[in-house]
Amino acid sequence: MPADAAPSFLLLAELPGVGGRVTLPEDESHYLTRVCRARAGERATATDGRGGLATLRLVETGRRAVVEIETCDRARAPRSAWVLAGAPEGNRGDWMVEKLAELGVTTFAPIDCERGRWERVGGRAERWQRLAVAALRQSRRRFLLEVLPPRPIAEAVAGHTEAGCWLADAEGAPASTLQPPSAGQAVGLVGPASGLTPGERELASRAGFRPISLADGRLRTETAAIAWAGWWAGAPAGGPVFAS
Amino acid sequence: MPADAAPSFLLLAELPGVGGRVTLPEDESHYLTRVCRARAGERATATDGRGGLATLRLVETGRRAVVEIETCDRARAPRSAWVLAGAPEGNRGDWMVEKLAELGVTTFAPIDCERGRWERVGGRAERWQRLAVAALRQSRRRFLLEVLPPRPIAEAVAGHTEAGCWLADAEGAPASTLQPPSAGQAVGLVGPASGLTPGERELASRAGFRPISLADGRLRTETAAIAWAGWWAGAPAGGPVFAS
Repeated sequence: MPADAAPSFLLLAELPGVGGRVTLPEDESHYLTRVCRARAGERATATDGRGGLATLRLVETGRRAVVEIETCDRARAPRSAWVLAGAPEGNRGDWMVEKLAELGVTTFAPIDCERGRWERVGGRAERWQRLAVAALRQSRRRFLLEVLPPRPIAEAVAGHTEAGCWLADAEGAPASTLQPPSAGQAVGLVGPASGLTPGERELASRAGFRPISLADGRLRTETAAIAWAGWWAGAPAGGPVFAS
Repeated sequence: MPADAAPSFLLLAELPGVGGRVTLPEDESHYLTRVCRARAGERATATDGRGGLATLRLVETGRRAVVEIETCDRARAPRSAWVLAGAPEGNRGDWMVEKLAELGVTTFAPIDCERGRWERVGGRAERWQRLAVAALRQSRRRFLLEVLPPRPIAEAVAGHTEAGCWLADAEGAPASTLQPPSAGQAVGLVGPASGLTPGERELASRAGFRPISLADGRLRTETAAIAWAGWWAGAPAGGPVFAS
Protein backbone atom coordinates (compact mmCIF):
# COMPACT_ATOMS: atom_id res chain seq x y z
CA MET A 1 0.00 0.00 0.00
CA PRO A 2 2.75 2.56 0.77
CA ALA A 3 4.04 4.18 -2.42
CA ASP A 4 7.26 5.91 -3.38
CA ALA A 5 8.51 8.91 -1.40
CA ALA A 6 5.69 11.44 -1.30
CA PRO A 7 5.78 14.28 -3.78
CA SER A 8 4.49 17.53 -2.35
CA PHE A 9 0.81 17.83 -1.47
CA LEU A 10 -0.41 21.13 -0.05
CA LEU A 11 -3.50 22.06 1.91
CA LEU A 12 -4.71 25.59 1.16
CA ALA A 13 -7.65 27.38 2.72
CA GLU A 14 -8.78 28.66 -0.70
CA LEU A 15 -8.00 27.64 -4.28
CA PRO A 16 -8.49 30.49 -6.75
CA GLY A 17 -9.20 29.78 -10.45
CA VAL A 18 -6.58 28.89 -13.05
CA GLY A 19 -3.96 31.67 -13.35
CA GLY A 20 -4.63 32.91 -9.82
CA ARG A 21 -1.75 33.34 -7.40
CA VAL A 22 -1.61 32.38 -3.73
CA THR A 23 0.90 33.50 -1.11
CA LEU A 24 1.39 30.41 1.03
CA PRO A 25 1.19 30.55 4.80
CA GLU A 26 4.53 29.94 6.54
CA ASP A 27 3.93 26.29 7.38
CA GLU A 28 2.98 25.34 3.82
CA SER A 29 5.91 27.41 2.46
CA HIS A 30 8.25 25.52 4.76
CA TYR A 31 6.75 22.18 3.77
CA LEU A 32 6.99 22.91 0.03
CA THR A 33 10.43 24.53 -0.15
CA ARG A 34 12.22 22.86 2.77
CA VAL A 35 10.63 19.45 3.34
CA CYS A 36 9.88 18.72 -0.34
CA ARG A 37 12.73 20.96 -1.60
CA ALA A 38 10.70 22.37 -4.47
CA ARG A 39 12.41 25.08 -6.56
CA ALA A 40 10.96 27.97 -8.53
CA GLY A 41 9.23 26.65 -11.66
CA GLU A 42 8.52 23.22 -10.18
CA ARG A 43 5.01 21.85 -9.79
CA ALA A 44 3.05 20.72 -6.76
CA THR A 45 -0.43 19.48 -6.02
CA ALA A 46 -2.82 21.16 -3.60
CA THR A 47 -6.26 20.58 -2.18
CA ASP A 48 -8.57 22.79 -0.16
CA GLY A 49 -9.71 19.72 1.80
CA ARG A 50 -13.24 20.28 0.52
CA GLY A 51 -13.00 18.47 -2.83
CA GLY A 52 -10.86 20.94 -4.80
CA LEU A 53 -7.64 19.67 -6.35
CA ALA A 54 -5.14 21.90 -8.16
CA THR A 55 -1.79 21.76 -9.89
CA LEU A 56 0.41 24.66 -8.87
CA ARG A 57 3.69 26.11 -10.08
CA LEU A 58 6.10 27.59 -7.55
CA VAL A 59 6.66 31.20 -8.62
CA GLU A 60 8.55 32.72 -5.68
CA THR A 61 10.38 30.90 -2.93
CA GLY A 62 11.11 32.36 0.50
CA ARG A 63 9.50 32.38 3.91
CA ARG A 64 6.14 33.06 2.25
CA ALA A 65 6.32 31.32 -1.10
CA VAL A 66 4.00 32.26 -3.99
CA VAL A 67 2.35 29.69 -6.26
CA GLU A 68 0.25 30.02 -9.41
CA ILE A 69 -2.71 27.74 -10.17
CA GLU A 70 -2.25 25.82 -13.44
CA THR A 71 -5.20 23.42 -13.32
CA CYS A 72 -8.05 23.03 -10.87
CA ASP A 73 -11.08 20.79 -10.56
CA ARG A 74 -13.65 20.21 -7.91
CA ALA A 75 -15.39 17.00 -6.87
CA ARG A 76 -17.84 15.80 -4.31
CA ALA A 77 -17.35 12.51 -2.48
CA PRO A 78 -19.51 9.62 -3.68
CA ARG A 79 -19.94 8.52 -0.08
CA SER A 80 -19.10 9.59 3.45
CA ALA A 81 -18.37 7.98 6.80
CA TRP A 82 -18.86 9.32 10.30
CA VAL A 83 -17.24 7.69 13.31
CA LEU A 84 -19.03 8.32 16.61
CA ALA A 85 -16.51 7.31 19.25
CA GLY A 86 -16.51 7.15 23.03
CA ALA A 87 -13.33 8.15 24.86
CA PRO A 88 -10.50 5.60 24.66
CA GLU A 89 -7.82 5.21 27.33
CA GLY A 90 -5.09 7.84 27.63
CA ASN A 91 -4.07 9.61 24.44
CA ARG A 92 -5.18 6.84 22.12
CA GLY A 93 -7.53 9.36 20.53
CA ASP A 94 -4.53 10.75 18.63
CA TRP A 95 -3.99 7.49 16.84
CA MET A 96 -7.67 7.09 16.20
CA VAL A 97 -7.81 10.47 14.46
CA GLU A 98 -4.72 9.78 12.35
CA LYS A 99 -5.88 6.36 11.21
CA LEU A 100 -9.48 7.39 10.52
CA ALA A 101 -8.18 10.27 8.38
CA GLU A 102 -5.87 7.94 6.43
CA LEU A 103 -8.73 5.54 5.78
CA GLY A 104 -10.85 8.36 4.37
CA VAL A 105 -13.39 8.85 7.14
CA THR A 106 -15.25 12.14 6.65
CA THR A 107 -16.13 13.15 10.20
CA PHE A 108 -14.82 12.21 13.63
CA ALA A 109 -17.49 12.81 16.26
CA PRO A 110 -16.39 12.25 19.87
CA ILE A 111 -19.31 11.20 22.07
CA ASP A 112 -19.70 11.52 25.82
CA CYS A 113 -21.14 8.42 27.46
CA GLU A 114 -22.13 7.43 30.96
CA ARG A 115 -18.94 5.41 31.45
CA GLY A 116 -16.56 7.64 29.58
CA ARG A 117 -16.27 11.33 28.82
CA TRP A 118 -13.84 13.15 26.57
CA GLU A 119 -11.91 15.46 28.82
CA ARG A 120 -9.28 18.04 28.02
CA VAL A 121 -10.22 17.74 24.35
CA GLY A 122 -9.71 21.47 24.05
CA GLY A 123 -5.96 21.03 24.16
CA ARG A 124 -6.13 18.20 21.66
CA ALA A 125 -8.22 19.85 18.96
CA GLU A 126 -5.19 21.59 17.49
CA ARG A 127 -3.09 18.42 17.62
CA TRP A 128 -5.88 16.41 15.99
CA GLN A 129 -6.09 18.99 13.24
CA ARG A 130 -2.35 18.60 12.57
CA LEU A 131 -2.66 14.80 12.50
CA ALA A 132 -5.60 15.01 10.10
CA VAL A 133 -3.62 17.28 7.77
CA ALA A 134 -0.59 14.94 7.86
CA ALA A 135 -2.86 11.99 7.04
CA LEU A 136 -4.49 13.93 4.18
CA ARG A 137 -1.00 14.47 2.74
CA GLN A 138 -0.05 10.85 3.28
CA SER A 139 -3.15 9.60 1.49
CA ARG A 140 -3.27 12.48 -1.02
CA ARG A 141 -6.97 13.05 -0.37
CA ARG A 142 -9.29 15.80 -1.53
CA PHE A 143 -11.24 15.80 1.71
CA LEU A 144 -9.91 16.74 5.14
CA LEU A 145 -11.25 14.82 8.13
CA GLU A 146 -13.62 17.04 10.06
CA VAL A 147 -13.32 16.84 13.85
CA LEU A 148 -16.42 17.78 15.83
CA PRO A 149 -16.53 18.84 19.48
CA PRO A 150 -17.76 16.13 21.90
CA ARG A 151 -21.52 15.71 22.20
CA PRO A 152 -23.72 13.53 24.43
CA ILE A 153 -24.36 10.13 22.81
CA ALA A 154 -28.14 10.65 22.75
CA GLU A 155 -27.71 13.76 20.64
CA ALA A 156 -25.10 12.18 18.38
CA VAL A 157 -27.05 9.03 17.45
CA ALA A 158 -30.25 10.96 16.75
CA GLY A 159 -29.04 12.81 13.66
CA HIS A 160 -28.50 10.01 11.13
CA THR A 161 -31.89 8.86 9.97
CA GLU A 162 -30.87 8.78 6.28
CA ALA A 163 -27.64 6.88 6.88
CA GLY A 164 -26.57 3.24 7.22
CA CYS A 165 -25.64 2.93 10.89
CA TRP A 166 -23.54 0.29 12.64
CA LEU A 167 -22.65 -0.34 16.28
CA ALA A 168 -19.34 -2.11 16.98
CA ASP A 169 -20.48 -5.06 19.07
CA ALA A 170 -18.84 -8.44 19.71
CA GLU A 171 -22.33 -10.04 19.52
CA GLY A 172 -23.13 -8.57 16.11
CA ALA A 173 -22.98 -10.11 12.65
CA PRO A 174 -19.38 -10.75 11.47
CA ALA A 175 -18.14 -7.82 9.40
CA SER A 176 -17.30 -9.99 6.38
CA THR A 177 -20.98 -11.05 6.13
CA LEU A 178 -22.09 -7.42 5.82
CA GLN A 179 -21.53 -5.30 2.73
CA PRO A 180 -20.21 -1.77 3.30
CA PRO A 181 -22.14 0.84 1.31
CA SER A 182 -20.54 2.22 -1.88
CA ALA A 183 -22.65 5.38 -1.75
CA GLY A 184 -24.37 7.60 0.77
CA GLN A 185 -23.55 8.12 4.40
CA ALA A 186 -22.30 5.39 6.74
CA VAL A 187 -22.05 5.86 10.50
CA GLY A 188 -20.02 3.70 12.89
CA LEU A 189 -20.59 3.92 16.63
CA VAL A 190 -17.96 2.69 19.09
CA GLY A 191 -18.35 2.77 22.86
CA PRO A 192 -15.81 4.24 25.31
CA ALA A 193 -13.05 2.16 26.96
CA SER A 194 -15.43 0.97 29.69
CA GLY A 195 -18.21 0.17 27.24
CA LEU A 196 -21.74 1.42 26.62
CA THR A 197 -24.44 0.94 29.23
CA PRO A 198 -27.45 -1.29 28.36
CA GLY A 199 -29.50 1.91 28.12
CA GLU A 200 -27.09 3.43 25.62
CA ARG A 201 -27.10 0.26 23.52
CA GLU A 202 -30.88 0.35 23.51
CA LEU A 203 -30.75 3.99 22.45
CA ALA A 204 -28.47 3.11 19.51
CA SER A 205 -30.64 0.15 18.56
CA ARG A 206 -33.79 2.29 18.50
CA ALA A 207 -31.93 4.83 16.34
CA GLY A 208 -31.34 2.09 13.76
CA PHE A 209 -27.73 1.12 14.56
CA ARG A 210 -27.08 -2.49 13.53
CA PRO A 211 -24.53 -4.51 15.55
CA ILE A 212 -21.38 -5.47 13.64
CA SER A 213 -18.70 -7.79 15.02
CA LEU A 214 -15.22 -6.73 13.95
CA ALA A 215 -13.19 -9.54 15.57
CA ASP A 216 -13.69 -12.60 17.77
CA GLY A 217 -12.25 -10.90 20.87
CA ARG A 218 -12.82 -7.67 22.78
CA LEU A 219 -11.28 -4.68 21.04
CA ARG A 220 -10.11 -1.45 22.55
CA THR A 221 -12.13 1.61 21.52
CA GLU A 222 -9.60 2.91 19.01
CA THR A 223 -9.06 -0.55 17.52
CA ALA A 224 -12.79 -1.05 17.00
CA ALA A 225 -13.07 2.40 15.41
CA ILE A 226 -10.19 1.71 13.00
CA ALA A 227 -11.47 -1.78 12.19
CA TRP A 228 -14.93 -0.37 11.39
CA ALA A 229 -13.36 2.35 9.21
CA GLY A 230 -11.27 -0.32 7.47
CA TRP A 231 -14.42 -2.35 6.78
CA TRP A 232 -16.07 0.76 5.30
CA ALA A 233 -12.93 1.77 3.35
CA GLY A 234 -12.70 -1.70 1.78
CA ALA A 235 -15.78 -1.13 -0.41
CA PRO A 236 -15.17 -0.51 -4.11
CA ALA A 237 -14.50 3.22 -4.47
CA GLY A 238 -16.81 5.00 -6.83
CA GLY A 239 -14.20 7.73 -7.23
CA PRO A 240 -14.90 11.42 -6.86
CA VAL A 241 -17.91 12.85 -8.68
CA PHE A 242 -16.80 15.91 -10.63
CA ALA A 243 -18.77 19.10 -10.59
CA SER A 244 -20.06 20.05 -14.02
CA MET B 1 -16.93 -3.60 21.20
CA PRO B 2 -15.26 -2.66 24.52
CA ALA B 3 -16.86 -4.55 27.40
CA ASP B 4 -17.14 -3.88 31.12
CA ALA B 5 -14.03 -3.37 33.25
CA ALA B 6 -11.78 -6.37 32.68
CA PRO B 7 -11.83 -9.18 35.20
CA SER B 8 -8.44 -10.78 35.76
CA PHE B 9 -6.82 -12.75 32.93
CA LEU B 10 -3.42 -14.29 33.55
CA LEU B 11 -0.74 -15.55 31.21
CA LEU B 12 1.20 -18.50 32.65
CA ALA B 13 4.11 -20.35 31.07
CA GLU B 14 2.62 -23.71 32.04
CA LEU B 15 -0.86 -24.83 33.10
CA PRO B 16 -0.76 -28.02 35.22
CA GLY B 17 -3.80 -30.33 35.41
CA VAL B 18 -6.85 -29.76 37.62
CA GLY B 19 -5.85 -29.61 41.30
CA GLY B 20 -2.29 -28.55 40.45
CA ARG B 21 -0.82 -25.46 42.10
CA VAL B 22 1.26 -22.74 40.51
CA THR B 23 3.41 -20.13 42.23
CA LEU B 24 2.94 -17.03 40.10
CA PRO B 25 5.86 -14.97 38.86
CA GLU B 26 6.08 -11.53 40.44
CA ASP B 27 4.50 -9.62 37.57
CA GLU B 28 1.44 -11.89 37.39
CA SER B 29 1.15 -11.82 41.21
CA HIS B 30 1.18 -8.04 41.11
CA TYR B 31 -1.38 -7.95 38.31
CA LEU B 32 -3.73 -10.37 40.07
CA THR B 33 -3.56 -9.08 43.65
CA ARG B 34 -2.82 -5.39 43.09
CA VAL B 35 -4.23 -4.40 39.71
CA CYS B 36 -7.27 -6.71 39.84
CA ARG B 37 -7.38 -6.73 43.67
CA ALA B 38 -8.20 -10.43 43.89
CA ARG B 39 -8.38 -11.89 47.41
CA ALA B 40 -7.72 -15.43 48.67
CA GLY B 41 -10.52 -17.75 47.57
CA GLU B 42 -11.45 -15.64 44.54
CA ARG B 43 -11.31 -16.97 41.00
CA ALA B 44 -9.38 -15.88 37.95
CA THR B 45 -8.91 -17.06 34.38
CA ALA B 46 -5.55 -17.96 32.88
CA THR B 47 -4.15 -19.04 29.54
CA ASP B 48 -0.78 -20.39 28.52
CA GLY B 49 -1.03 -18.45 25.25
CA ARG B 50 -0.92 -21.74 23.33
CA GLY B 51 -4.59 -22.73 23.49
CA GLY B 52 -4.92 -23.72 27.16
CA LEU B 53 -7.56 -21.96 29.27
CA ALA B 54 -7.99 -22.53 33.00
CA THR B 55 -10.05 -21.34 35.94
CA LEU B 56 -7.89 -20.75 39.00
CA ARG B 57 -8.55 -20.08 42.65
CA LEU B 58 -6.23 -17.75 44.53
CA VAL B 59 -4.83 -19.78 47.43
CA GLU B 60 -2.06 -17.57 48.83
CA THR B 61 -1.55 -13.86 48.27
CA GLY B 62 1.79 -12.08 48.62
CA ARG B 63 4.68 -11.08 46.40
CA ARG B 64 4.56 -14.54 44.81
CA ALA B 65 0.91 -15.57 44.94
CA VAL B 66 -0.16 -19.24 44.67
CA VAL B 67 -3.15 -20.40 42.61
CA GLU B 68 -4.84 -23.78 42.22
CA ILE B 69 -6.25 -25.00 38.91
CA GLU B 70 -10.00 -25.74 39.12
CA THR B 71 -10.83 -26.38 35.45
CA CYS B 72 -8.67 -26.54 32.36
CA ASP B 73 -9.25 -27.21 28.67
CA ARG B 74 -7.13 -26.99 25.59
CA ALA B 75 -8.05 -25.93 22.08
CA ARG B 76 -6.42 -25.36 18.76
CA ALA B 77 -7.25 -22.35 16.62
CA PRO B 78 -9.56 -23.02 13.65
CA ARG B 79 -7.49 -20.58 11.59
CA SER B 80 -4.37 -18.50 11.75
CA ALA B 81 -3.07 -15.26 10.29
CA TRP B 82 0.48 -14.13 9.64
CA VAL B 83 1.36 -10.53 8.95
CA LEU B 84 4.58 -10.02 6.98
CA ALA B 85 5.40 -6.35 7.42
CA GLY B 86 8.10 -4.03 6.17
CA ALA B 87 9.46 -1.40 8.55
CA PRO B 88 7.12 1.54 9.20
CA GLU B 89 8.31 5.03 10.14
CA GLY B 90 9.66 5.67 13.63
CA ASN B 91 8.22 3.56 16.43
CA ARG B 92 4.98 2.81 14.66
CA GLY B 93 5.86 -0.87 14.93
CA ASP B 94 4.73 -0.76 18.56
CA TRP B 95 1.21 0.13 17.57
CA MET B 96 1.21 -2.40 14.81
CA VAL B 97 2.11 -5.19 17.25
CA GLU B 98 -0.53 -4.13 19.79
CA LYS B 99 -3.33 -3.85 17.25
CA LEU B 100 -2.46 -7.06 15.40
CA ALA B 101 -2.47 -8.93 18.74
CA GLU B 102 -5.87 -7.46 19.65
CA LEU B 103 -7.31 -8.50 16.31
CA GLY B 104 -6.14 -12.08 16.87
CA VAL B 105 -3.26 -12.30 14.40
CA THR B 106 -1.15 -15.38 15.12
CA THR B 107 2.31 -14.34 13.97
CA PHE B 108 4.00 -11.01 13.33
CA ALA B 109 6.87 -11.45 10.88
CA PRO B 110 8.98 -8.32 10.25
CA ILE B 111 10.53 -8.37 6.79
CA ASP B 112 13.60 -6.56 5.53
CA CYS B 113 13.12 -4.98 2.11
CA GLU B 114 15.29 -3.06 -0.30
CA ARG B 115 13.73 0.26 0.71
CA GLY B 116 13.29 -0.42 4.39
CA ARG B 117 15.03 -2.52 7.03
CA TRP B 118 14.02 -3.17 10.61
CA GLU B 119 16.80 -1.73 12.70
CA ARG B 120 17.33 -1.81 16.42
CA VAL B 121 14.58 -4.43 16.70
CA GLY B 122 16.65 -6.11 19.39
CA GLY B 123 15.68 -3.45 21.90
CA ARG B 124 12.06 -3.64 20.86
CA ALA B 125 11.52 -7.37 21.14
CA GLU B 126 10.89 -7.17 24.88
CA ARG B 127 8.56 -4.20 24.50
CA TRP B 128 6.62 -5.96 21.74
CA GLN B 129 6.27 -9.00 23.97
CA ARG B 130 4.75 -6.81 26.72
CA LEU B 131 2.37 -5.19 24.26
CA ALA B 132 1.30 -8.59 22.93
CA VAL B 133 0.61 -9.82 26.48
CA ALA B 134 -1.42 -6.70 27.30
CA ALA B 135 -3.45 -7.18 24.12
CA LEU B 136 -4.02 -10.86 24.95
CA ARG B 137 -5.46 -9.77 28.32
CA GLN B 138 -7.54 -7.06 26.70
CA SER B 139 -9.05 -9.49 24.21
CA ARG B 140 -9.06 -12.48 26.60
CA ARG B 141 -7.48 -14.72 23.99
CA ARG B 142 -6.09 -18.26 24.24
CA PHE B 143 -3.29 -17.56 21.80
CA LEU B 144 -0.42 -15.12 22.28
CA LEU B 145 0.85 -13.26 19.23
CA GLU B 146 4.19 -14.72 18.19
CA VAL B 147 6.82 -12.19 17.12
CA LEU B 148 9.51 -13.45 14.76
CA PRO B 149 12.92 -11.88 14.18
CA PRO B 150 13.25 -9.89 10.91
CA ARG B 151 13.97 -11.92 7.77
CA PRO B 152 14.65 -10.93 4.16
CA ILE B 153 11.43 -10.64 2.15
CA ALA B 154 12.46 -13.35 -0.31
CA GLU B 155 12.80 -15.85 2.51
CA ALA B 156 9.56 -14.75 4.20
CA VAL B 157 7.27 -15.01 1.17
CA ALA B 158 8.61 -18.41 0.16
CA GLY B 159 7.27 -20.36 3.12
CA HIS B 160 3.50 -20.16 2.63
CA THR B 161 2.59 -22.45 -0.23
CA GLU B 162 -0.41 -23.94 1.63
CA ALA B 163 -1.82 -20.59 2.72
CA GLY B 164 -4.11 -17.93 1.28
CA CYS B 165 -1.78 -15.01 0.64
CA TRP B 166 -2.59 -11.33 0.06
CA LEU B 167 -0.47 -8.29 -0.77
CA ALA B 168 -1.75 -4.90 0.44
CA ASP B 169 -1.83 -2.94 -2.82
CA ALA B 170 -3.85 0.13 -3.80
CA GLU B 171 -4.31 -1.40 -7.28
CA GLY B 172 -5.75 -4.66 -5.95
CA ALA B 173 -9.35 -5.86 -5.67
CA PRO B 174 -11.36 -3.96 -3.01
CA ALA B 175 -11.27 -5.83 0.29
CA SER B 176 -15.05 -6.02 0.56
CA THR B 177 -15.19 -7.99 -2.72
CA LEU B 178 -12.87 -10.66 -1.31
CA GLN B 179 -13.93 -13.19 1.32
CA PRO B 180 -11.51 -13.72 4.22
CA PRO B 181 -10.94 -17.43 4.96
CA SER B 182 -12.75 -18.96 7.96
CA ALA B 183 -10.21 -21.79 8.22
CA GLY B 184 -6.57 -22.48 7.48
CA GLN B 185 -3.71 -20.05 7.27
CA ALA B 186 -3.96 -16.54 5.85
CA VAL B 187 -0.93 -14.37 5.15
CA GLY B 188 -0.94 -10.60 4.65
CA LEU B 189 2.10 -8.85 3.19
CA VAL B 190 2.62 -5.11 3.66
CA GLY B 191 5.55 -3.16 2.25
CA PRO B 192 7.79 -0.80 4.25
CA ALA B 193 7.16 2.95 4.55
CA SER B 194 8.89 3.64 1.24
CA GLY B 195 7.12 0.79 -0.54
CA LEU B 196 8.16 -2.43 -2.24
CA THR B 197 10.33 -2.37 -5.35
CA PRO B 198 8.87 -3.72 -8.61
CA GLY B 199 11.15 -6.75 -8.17
CA GLU B 200 9.78 -7.44 -4.71
CA ARG B 201 6.20 -7.13 -5.94
CA GLU B 202 7.00 -9.60 -8.70
CA LEU B 203 8.51 -11.92 -6.10
CA ALA B 204 5.31 -11.79 -4.02
CA SER B 205 3.15 -12.28 -7.10
CA ARG B 206 5.10 -15.39 -8.15
CA ALA B 207 4.74 -16.73 -4.59
CA GLY B 208 0.94 -16.53 -4.99
CA PHE B 209 0.20 -13.28 -3.14
CA ARG B 210 -2.99 -11.69 -4.49
CA PRO B 211 -3.29 -7.88 -4.41
CA ILE B 212 -5.97 -6.52 -2.05
CA SER B 213 -6.96 -2.86 -1.86
CA LEU B 214 -7.77 -1.78 1.68
CA ALA B 215 -8.76 1.85 1.03
CA ASP B 216 -8.98 4.35 -1.83
CA GLY B 217 -5.89 6.28 -0.70
CA ARG B 218 -2.29 5.47 0.19
CA LEU B 219 -1.99 3.95 3.65
CA ARG B 220 0.98 3.99 5.97
CA THR B 221 2.57 0.59 6.59
CA GLU B 222 1.02 0.08 10.02
CA THR B 223 -2.40 1.24 8.83
CA ALA B 224 -2.36 -1.21 5.93
CA ALA B 225 -1.29 -4.02 8.27
CA ILE B 226 -4.09 -3.27 10.74
CA ALA B 227 -6.67 -2.86 7.96
CA TRP B 228 -5.67 -6.24 6.48
CA ALA B 229 -5.86 -7.86 9.93
CA GLY B 230 -9.29 -6.26 10.44
CA TRP B 231 -10.45 -7.67 7.09
CA TRP B 232 -9.24 -11.13 8.18
CA ALA B 233 -10.68 -10.78 11.71
CA GLY B 234 -14.10 -9.87 10.31
CA ALA B 235 -14.75 -13.42 9.05
CA PRO B 236 -17.23 -15.53 11.02
CA ALA B 237 -15.23 -17.12 13.83
CA GLY B 238 -15.35 -20.90 13.88
CA GLY B 239 -14.46 -20.82 17.58
CA PRO B 240 -11.68 -22.87 19.13
CA VAL B 241 -11.49 -26.57 18.29
CA PHE B 242 -11.22 -28.51 21.53
CA ALA B 243 -8.73 -31.33 21.94
CA SER B 244 -10.44 -34.64 22.58
